[in-house]
This record gives sequence, C-alpha cells and structure tokens, in this order.
Amino acid sequence: MRLTLNTGPGKAAGIFTGSTVFQELNAFLRNLSPGPDSIFILTDKQTRFCCLEELTSAVPSLLAAEVLEIPAGEKNKSLKSAEHLWNILAVKGASRRSLLINLGGGVITDLGGFVASTFNRGIPFIHIPTSLLGMVDAAIGGKTGINLGDIKNQVGTFQNPDAIFISTGFLGTLDSYELVSGFAEIIKIALVADIRLWKKLGTIRLQDLLEMKTDKKIWEDLVSASVTIKCRIVEQDFREKNLREILNFGHTIGHAFESLSLQTKRNPLSHGHAIALGMICESYLSVIKSGLDSGDRDAIIRMIFPDYEYYPLHKEDLDFMMEFIGHDKKRKGSGACFSLLKSPGNAISGEPCDPGEIIESIDFYRTLER
Amino acid sequence: MRLTLNTGPGKAAGIFTGSTVFQELNAFLRNLSPGPDSIFILTDKQTRFCCLEELTSAVPSLLAAEVLEIPAGEKNKSLKSAEHLWNILAVKGASRRSLLINLGGGVITDLGGFVASTFNRGIPFIHIPTSLLGMVDAAIGGKTGINLGDIKNQVGTFQNPDAIFISTGFLGTLDSYELVSGFAEIIKIALVADIRLWKKLGTIRLQDLLEMKTDKKIWEDLVSASVTIKCRIVEQDFREKNLREILNFGHTIGHAFESLSLQTKRNPLSHGHAIALGMICESYLSVIKSGLDSGDRDAIIRMIFPDYEYYPLHKEDLDFMMEFIGHDKKRKGSGACFSLLKSPGNAISGEPCDPGEIIESIDFYRTLER
Repeated sequence: MRLTLNTGPGKAAGIFTGSTVFQELNAFLRNLSPGPDSIFILTDKQTRFCCLEELTSAVPSLLAAEVLEIPAGEKNKSLKSAEHLWNILAVKGASRRSLLINLGGGVITDLGGFVASTFNRGIPFIHIPTSLLGMVDAAIGGKTGINLGDIKNQVGTFQNPDAIFISTGFLGTLDSYELVSGFAEIIKIALVADIRLWKKLGTIRLQDLLEMKTDKKIWEDLVSASVTIKCRIVEQDFREKNLREILNFGHTIGHAFESLSLQTKRNPLSHGHAIALGMICESYLSVIKSGLDSGDRDAIIRMIFPDYEYYPLHKEDLDFMMEFIGHDKKRKGSGACFSLLKSPGNAISGEPCDPGEIIESIDFYRTLER
Repeated sequence: MRLTLNTGPGKAAGIFTGSTVFQELNAFLRNLSPGPDSIFILTDKQTRFCCLEELTSAVPSLLAAEVLEIPAGEKNKSLKSAEHLWNILAVKGASRRSLLINLGGGVITDLGGFVASTFNRGIPFIHIPTSLLGMVDAAIGGKTGINLGDIKNQVGTFQNPDAIFISTGFLGTLDSYELVSGFAEIIKIALVADIRLWKKLGTIRLQDLLEMKTDKKIWEDLVSASVTIKCRIVEQDFREKNLREILNFGHTIGHAFESLSLQTKRNPLSHGHAIALGMICESYLSVIKSGLDSGDRDAIIRMIFPDYEYYPLHKEDLDFMMEFIGHDKKRKGSGACFSLLKSPGNAISGEPCDPGEIIESIDFYRTLER
C-alpha cells in the first residue's frame, strides 16, 4: 500500500506499508536519480541486533551501506549524539548526494532526521520505523528533533523524509511493554480525528493483539489507518500552527506524568502509558470545557484502564506536575492551552484551562485508583 | 525600496533597503499578527557597541527587547555558541511566537538564522545586516549555518528569514578592511550574473568609495543592485541543486587561500580578499574551460589588483591548497567542480577541472606577483 504525505508543492513523501514494502524499498533505491554516492544506516545497538539482518537480506544493496550505531535509549536523543553523527558523516565524506536511512524507533528517526536535515544544510533521508510508536506516530509527519537537557524536542526541524517504509514484521521483535506504549498513540489518533477507528478499537482487545503480534494483517490495518489519519492532519498544517495541535491531546498532562515518573525513578512510565493517563485527565477537561459527553469520557477510561495501570500520585507529585505544565504553558506564551475533545473523533486545540481546572482533572484521575 | 525573495509558495520575505528602512521595521513589528510574546536581539560585542543604539533610537519598541551577546569573530560561529543560545532562549521562555532579530555581520546572521530555524523546530527571525558582506551576500538567500570544527557551514538549514532590513548607514561603522572584503562579493555577483553591474563597477574606484562611506546613495545603489541579482538567482534554486551554485565562483580556490592564510597565521586574509584571489585563478580556469575571453580575464585582474594585495605563495602552500580543494571535491562526490564564467555576467556551474588544470591556474596567479 502506498500513501503520500504532501507537505507543500513538490514535497510529497511516499509512505509504503504492507507485504511488498521491501520490494518498494529496492525499487526506490534503484530509481534514485542521481544515484547516491554513499548510503548510511543509522540505528541503535538493540535494533541493529534485531532488525538489520532482516533488512539487508530483503534489500541486499544495503549490505554495502555504512552502519552508524548509537546506544539505545531516549537519553541518546541528544546534541552530543547529533555532533558525533555530523562529525562521522563529515569524516566519511557524506554529501548532498548521500542518503541516510534511519532504522529504529522514535529516537532514531527523530535524531537521524535532525542530523540529515541539517548536515550540509540537508541531505536526503528515509525512515524505516521499527517500533509501533515510530510506525504510527514518530516517523510520520516530518518532525525531527533532539532533547536539550531535560527539555524534549527543544531543537529540531520540520523536514519530511524522502520516503518512509513501514514493515509491520518488525513488530515481532518488540515486547509487550513497547507494543502497549505505541498502542496509546493509535487510541489518541482515533479519538482526535476518526470515529470509525475509535469504534473499531472498541471491538479489539489489546491483550489479544499482543498474542498475535506476528499476525501482520491486523497490525497492518491498524497502522495504515493511523498513518492515513495522521497524514490527513499534517498535510493541512505541516508547521503546527493550528490544526496539527490536536495531535497533542493527552500530551500536556501526559508529559507531566512521564517527566514525574522519570524524575522520581519509581516505576518509570513508558511514553504511551503516560499519554494514556494524560488522556484520562484531558477527557475530564474535555467534559467541562469542550462539551465531551461524560459517557464518552467513561468509555475512554474503560478503553485505557485494562491495559495501562493506574499510576499512584502522592501529594507532592501534584506540585511537580503543575510546575511542569506551567513551564509548558510559558513556552507557548499564552496560558496553559490544551487540545481537547468535543466528541470521539472530533477535537479542538488552543483551549485555555486555568490551574484550578487542571488540578480538578488530576483529582478526578485520583478517584479512579483501584 | 522593497524587494521580495520568494522561495516557495507562501514563503516570501520582504527585503527593505533605503532611507525609510527603520520606518519599515517599525511598521513590520507593529503589524506582526499575532504579536510576538517576546523579542530577542542577537548581536556581538562589537556590533552592540557600534550599532545597537542607532537601531533602538530609530525603533524604540526594541528598547524592551532582550539582548543576547556573543563575542565577535568567525570562531564563534560554532555549535558551542548555538547550544548556548538555545539554552538561553529556553530559560527565557522563548516560543514559536517569539522573534529573534539578528543584528550583525555574516557570523551573526548565519548563527542566529540556524538557532532560530531549529529552536522549537523554528521560530520567526529577521536579519539586520551591519557589514557590507552581510548586506550583499550572507544575509540574503536563506542559508544558515555553523562551522563544525574546521569545516565551514557544515551544519545548517535553508530557511528564509521573515524579513531583512538593510540600512547602509551601518557601513559608516566599518573600517576599510571590512568594506574591501564585502566589495569582493559585489564584484562576484556582477561577474556571474549581471553584465550591467560589471560595467558599472568599471566606472567606480573602490578607493573613492571608501572615502565616501557615509554617502548613502552610491552604496545603496550598489547594495540594492547586488541584492536584486542574488534574489533572482536564489528564487530559481533555493536549495542549491544547480543554478545557485554559480554564486560559488571564486570560492573553491578562494576558500583554499582563506584556509591557508588562517592555518599559517602569516597575514590572515579577509574572506573577500581570499575570494578575490580565488576569482583570479578561476578566471584563468574559465579561459581554458568555459570559453572566457582572455581580455575579460585581464580586465577582472585589473579590477581586483589595485584593491586586493597579491598574497605570496610558497612551494609547500600549493600542496596545502590542493589537499584542501581535494577535500572539497570529496564532499561534492563527483570530481573537483567549479563555477566558471563564459563571459562577464554569464556563468555555469558543475564544471569539472582536474588537478593539473587547478595547479596551472595557481601558477598563473603566481606570475602576477609584483
């Protein structure tokens, strides 16, 4: 299956999914004109171990590519890694006719996209996401970035890759923790923009899916649906001036959960787990601010709780979270603004909420402790 | 006078020159919608001393702007400076609704453009070039960048600023060394793309101009002509895939002169001085490769030599320069390619020259020692 993400005149990136994805990649590499003078594959140690051989056996021309490896983990999405990669590319003689292939999860595609979009003021790059989160979210939409100290994605670019190749076969290399994390972004995309997908999710049990992680068909359908919806949104607002912000549903409070769990180091939450909990709070806000039906809010909670554990909050955690959200607010320059739901499949962005309302939503979450 | 640089649909930057430039800047700031939540001015210590007060007295609303100062000099166009600035912007709460004003020469506009185009994945920025080189070249065309170790502009973006305000009044703050340096880029732009400007330059003595550095009219005419020509080229090829490369005339060998003089530390050449000497060598190459008339080559030499001193080359310098050019070649991935002249005002790019020809051109230059 081939989708296209158009981010401006003459700036379309093909997104390939389905069983022929590696054939498509072979054809893509063969048809590059002018042909690349060198090809680099950026990956992390773990992904190299799990996925590189599958890639090169399906696409033998990549056996000749130079592999650039970084350690796995979010802390390597750093300026230090970017500098390291820029230096290697310079030493290896990379040029605007080179190609960087980013093979990995969100850390690799965000970091590699940033490095490629700035080396020599931009060289061609493609993404081959290997995590569920990468396939449905991070690799799609042209956001690249690195963290600056504690601040996620503080530095980056908007630059669509030249193409994206999604092989759901790589999902077989993931553990449940990662699949559950990525699934939260599928729930989110359904909630903000597609009632049909939301209804479909209601017929699926994630636990069943986890047991069928090598069943390509069902995953391909979910991934394709999510990618299609995201492309439709991103095309209308590539640089996130308005509409695209709806994709941040669950993320304002979700990031506060994530940061809290990393800070306190008791039981760190995966990104998706944190976003899932954020969606509970922001569904509450949606009821009081943007007219979401409380029955729909409860349906969202029922969708989330079987698979995402309640994360206990202590009294002092609330202060941390409010300060974190306040910082987010300050960066946006105009009150704490949320992307909220009017109904499942229909979201709005830029909805200001005051601290009292935010605290209320977290208190609501705390009543759900079981 | 208002020019427009169109780099894509919906991506036009106004370029303002002439006596009303600060009124235009006042109007620009007033009309920003939404208004910026904060304004930052990036400058260097020397420019702050020479130019900031003139700016804020003409544009009083900028008295409230936060000034970010770095030390003057090319060595500060570094990743370290970029990191420092990203961190300051984060601490000061800059957002996508903030505005960064780059007030200075090429180091400031290149560095500030890079920082702004990557902070938060891009915030608005404008350039106010204060050097002649900045006004006619560095600030125009949307190239941003930093040096990576010894490699100039290894990391950067193509991102047009939101507007450029050129006040030739700032030329009064420059010494002759800097004016002569910037003038080389005016010679270059005439040679590659505008026979009329080239003929006009033939009627002007640079030494006279230097004595009239506060005569705004004549400088404004030269600056406007250069900017107009550069915009015409950049608009056709923003990302430098082909046509825009003609602007590199004189730069392949010129950069080797520049690097040599910095390396050996005997009498460092200004950027423009090095480019002027590079243009002599590359005019020679133009005669043997792209059909430039040798009479035109000699006219170019006569234009350059009164104002740009002969730089003596030792035997071992040639090795250094050839290695430097070879490195440049490697980065381009397809032989040592030059932008050469077919005639004054008419250039071509991507012209391969072999080492023997390059050495011949430098030997020719050495016969001109006086």
